[in-house]
Amino acid sequence: MEQPLGIADLRGAAVIEALRAALGNAVLTGADMAPWSRDWTGQYQWTPLCVVRPRDTGAVSTVMRLAHAEGVPVVPVSGHTGLSGGTLGEGAVMLSLDRLDRIEEIRPEARVARVGAGVILSDLHAAAAVYDLCFPMTFGAKGSARLGGLLATNAGGSNVLRYGNTRDLVLGLEAVLADGRVVDLMSELHKNNTGYDLRHLLIGSEGTLAVITRAVLKLTPAPRAHATAMVATETLDGALMLLNRLQQMTGGAVEAFEYMPRAYMEAHARLDPAARPPFDTGYDVNILVELSATAPRDADTGPDGAVPLTGYLEAVLAQLYGEGLVLDATVARSDAQRAAFWARREAAAEISLSHRPAVVNDVAVPLDRVARFLDMAGARVRAIAAEARDMTVAHLGDGNLHYVVWLEDSAQRDPVMEAVEDVVLTLGGSFSAEHGIGTSKLASMARRKDPVALDMMRAIKQALDPKGILNPGKTVPPA
Amino acid sequence: MEQPLGIADLRGAAVIEALRAALGNAVLTGADMAPWSRDWTGQYQWTPLCVVRPRDTGAVSTVMRLAHAEGVPVVPVSGHTGLSGGTLGEGAVMLSLDRLDRIEEIRPEARVARVGAGVILSDLHAAAAVYDLCFPMTFGAKGSARLGGLLATNAGGSNVLRYGNTRDLVLGLEAVLADGRVVDLMSELHKNNTGYDLRHLLIGSEGTLAVITRAVLKLTPAPRAHATAMVATETLDGALMLLNRLQQMTGGAVEAFEYMPRAYMEAHARLDPAARPPFDTGYDVNILVELSATAPRDADTGPDGAVPLTGYLEAVLAQLYGEGLVLDATVARSDAQRAAFWARREAAAEISLSHRPAVVNDVAVPLDRVARFLDMAGARVRAIAAEARDMTVAHLGDGNLHYVVWLEDSAQRDPVMEAVEDVVLTLGGSFSAEHGIGTSKLASMARRKDPVALDMMRAIKQALDPKGILNPGKTVPPA
Repeated sequence: MEQPLGIADLRGAAVIEALRAALGNAVLTGADMAPWSRDWTGQYQWTPLCVVRPRDTGAVSTVMRLAHAEGVPVVPVSGHTGLSGGTLGEGAVMLSLDRLDRIEEIRPEARVARVGAGVILSDLHAAAAVYDLCFPMTFGAKGSARLGGLLATNAGGSNVLRYGNTRDLVLGLEAVLADGRVVDLMSELHKNNTGYDLRHLLIGSEGTLAVITRAVLKLTPAPRAHATAMVATETLDGALMLLNRLQQMTGGAVEAFEYMPRAYMEAHARLDPAARPPFDTGYDVNILVELSATAPRDADTGPDGAVPLTGYLEAVLAQLYGEGLVLDATVARSDAQRAAFWARREAAAEISLSHRPAVVNDVAVPLDRVARFLDMAGARVRAIAAEARDMTVAHLGDGNLHYVVWLEDSAQRDPVMEAVEDVVLTLGGSFSAEHGIGTSKLASMARRKDPVALDMMRAIKQALDPKGILNPGKTVPPA
Repeated sequence: MEQPLGIADLRGAAVIEALRAALGNAVLTGADMAPWSRDWTGQYQWTPLCVVRPRDTGAVSTVMRLAHAEGVPVVPVSGHTGLSGGTLGEGAVMLSLDRLDRIEEIRPEARVARVGAGVILSDLHAAAAVYDLCFPMTFGAKGSARLGGLLATNAGGSNVLRYGNTRDLVLGLEAVLADGRVVDLMSELHKNNTGYDLRHLLIGSEGTLAVITRAVLKLTPAPRAHATAMVATETLDGALMLLNRLQQMTGGAVEAFEYMPRAYMEAHARLDPAARPPFDTGYDVNILVELSATAPRDADTGPDGAVPLTGYLEAVLAQLYGEGLVLDATVARSDAQRAAFWARREAAAEISLSHRPAVVNDVAVPLDRVARFLDMAGARVRAIAAEARDMTVAHLGDGNLHYVVWLEDSAQRDPVMEAVEDVVLTLGGSFSAEHGIGTSKLASMARRKDPVALDMMRAIKQALDPKGILNPGKTVPPA
């Protein structure tokens, strides 16, 4: 016998009908919703009410207005490459921003790009490159991740050390509020003190306060030279010495400083057996280091045919090799070799999730405590789950570790997560560095975030989205 | 005959009594309140209910709790060097942060300082210098301005071009809410995505959402060399060409790029007749340019006894002189000469207010529209007040102009301000770049800020300070 329709179903049907009337075939239901019914990790699955794919800000506003009138939840989604379950949408209108994919303007003399929230990160990279400029944010999922998601989560990545997080690259925003009103903060200015900084409030709010639809982004001059190497050091302390010496010598030209332990190198060799390993033998501490420069004094090929930047890197490596701190090093001699180094690093998400169940801890600790963190966390995890294996990959230059624990029993998931948090907070770190809170870190937020800060967040959420329809159940735990 | 005491007076007396019971002689009344009864510009004067000078966060919390219980307004103040009337406190408790003046810790290896809100900016400069580090924010009032004020207003200054605004130099905060609760956001991490960014919300909120009591600040390596010059160019476009060439050659080592027109140079000569002018003759466009470097390749004295950085500067100046774009230049040959160049620039506030009435417009426009702004604004102002004179000084490197208009009749103040705003917005600029809104720009906020943004600000204010006791009547205009 068929289940009778409840009030929620009737309201849902009315919302779909109203959305269809306004947006036509931009509204998807049934099997067409499949790509919006799971996230990239495959860990979360849900059944949306419907999916809408508006083509402009006005249509996004219409969606919000209709949903607001009916009190129906709306979950914004752009590239859905998130790792924290930030786009779960059981019974919700999935508001896909993928069609807001226009790079509206690049003004090279002002070094700004005006983009829609649906623009794919690597498309922006390519568009900026035409003008010898770059948008320096980058990470493994760059070919699928869209700017709306980067903005909503304040995404990090491999170049934060030099250029900051996503929020540091944003000059202006446009967003649609829960009730459909559009807020215009599309400034291009570097100095603009006009009341509360709503831009920074919306960036990183994970779609719970507003739907970001457009942005003005800072571009920087494209590096004219890179010097890239894989380096093996005896210890993590030796690696930090390498970082500091390079920063001193170049005045801060280190763009990436990525740590991959032995287990990671081995996992990558299994994933891609054809990839040529950087060293003839295996080491415990492997670093991908990259310097970059725009200025002629560093980047122009000298009379000896070499780029000065590479010379700096080789000089510091030789110095530390002499001191016994560097064990081995391979400097990239071609773009292909540089790309191969990066491909290994950018396989991180795939490697991390190659075993299930896996707990993906995205933590940050002060730089000089990374080694202690790994020791302490390892011991705590093994005490809970003797057979657990850990898989680390880290943006060592900013103390951000993806400390993944492979378990045999998912019941150990929460205790492991809590133990890792304990260690992180003991060391003055953060339980959530760059992936965001979403669903998976909600319990951590409730346990670990300053309670007054949580109250402030709840008050702000209530003030800007009183019906609680925007991405409900994410980011801010209930009181 | 004596005025009978009203209810407000009785409540006021009760609040003073309660504050005295809790804080003793940290509570000032009567003539002792004089320094807290006017601002630096002398344009605003008021009579506070009392002044409190707490010594720690706990005492600040006590003040807020008592004031909140009684619904009495509280106006936080630190160095009161503001230019926008942000600390008017008629009938309010003036909450002075000047005794929270402890530099709690400088951790050179982590490049952070933990400071109280009452620390004077130049004291932090001096403390960081001991470790060969610097806190790069700087401006004329650095000897009196305190960090609480810098944070509350997101202060700008002369080095924003290279290091960003105050908010870009802050890792963590502690603040006291309207009801006395303390929120702990004292993170030292560069990556920390744990919910809404309350830090950025409080920075720049001008004491209307919370009282900032402590902060974790980023330090940077102290420059090992400077190259500083006064340069006269034919036009502002020529000056921008100088900026761009220097940035290209050095990979972004320009730390300051300050514009002073002929009228400013003449006003300074009147103010300080003993100061030696940089050029033998007067020019229309005068630029103070400063490069700085930490890396040995730029900063170490070479075999010829010269610092490479100075060589870069001289090479670009020679090039542009050859092209007719630079008319004259004096490169500083000593620390004393460098200091003299800076003293001229840092007399800006004094020069601007040497004539009253004066309208201080603190605006920003895209770099390439600065010249157009000056032409258009001048014409508009003269149409309103034929005898008005303007006095400009600008952080040209980030498009921020202090466009001061000297009037003969204060009735022209508002029409002039509105005309300048018109021009600014036509050119895609902001009516408030770095001084903040306070009282003096409140009408501009009401006229010019996106109305939905204003509604969001009002909702946030209501959510975090429902009784409206924190710095009432500032920053966010009433609906």
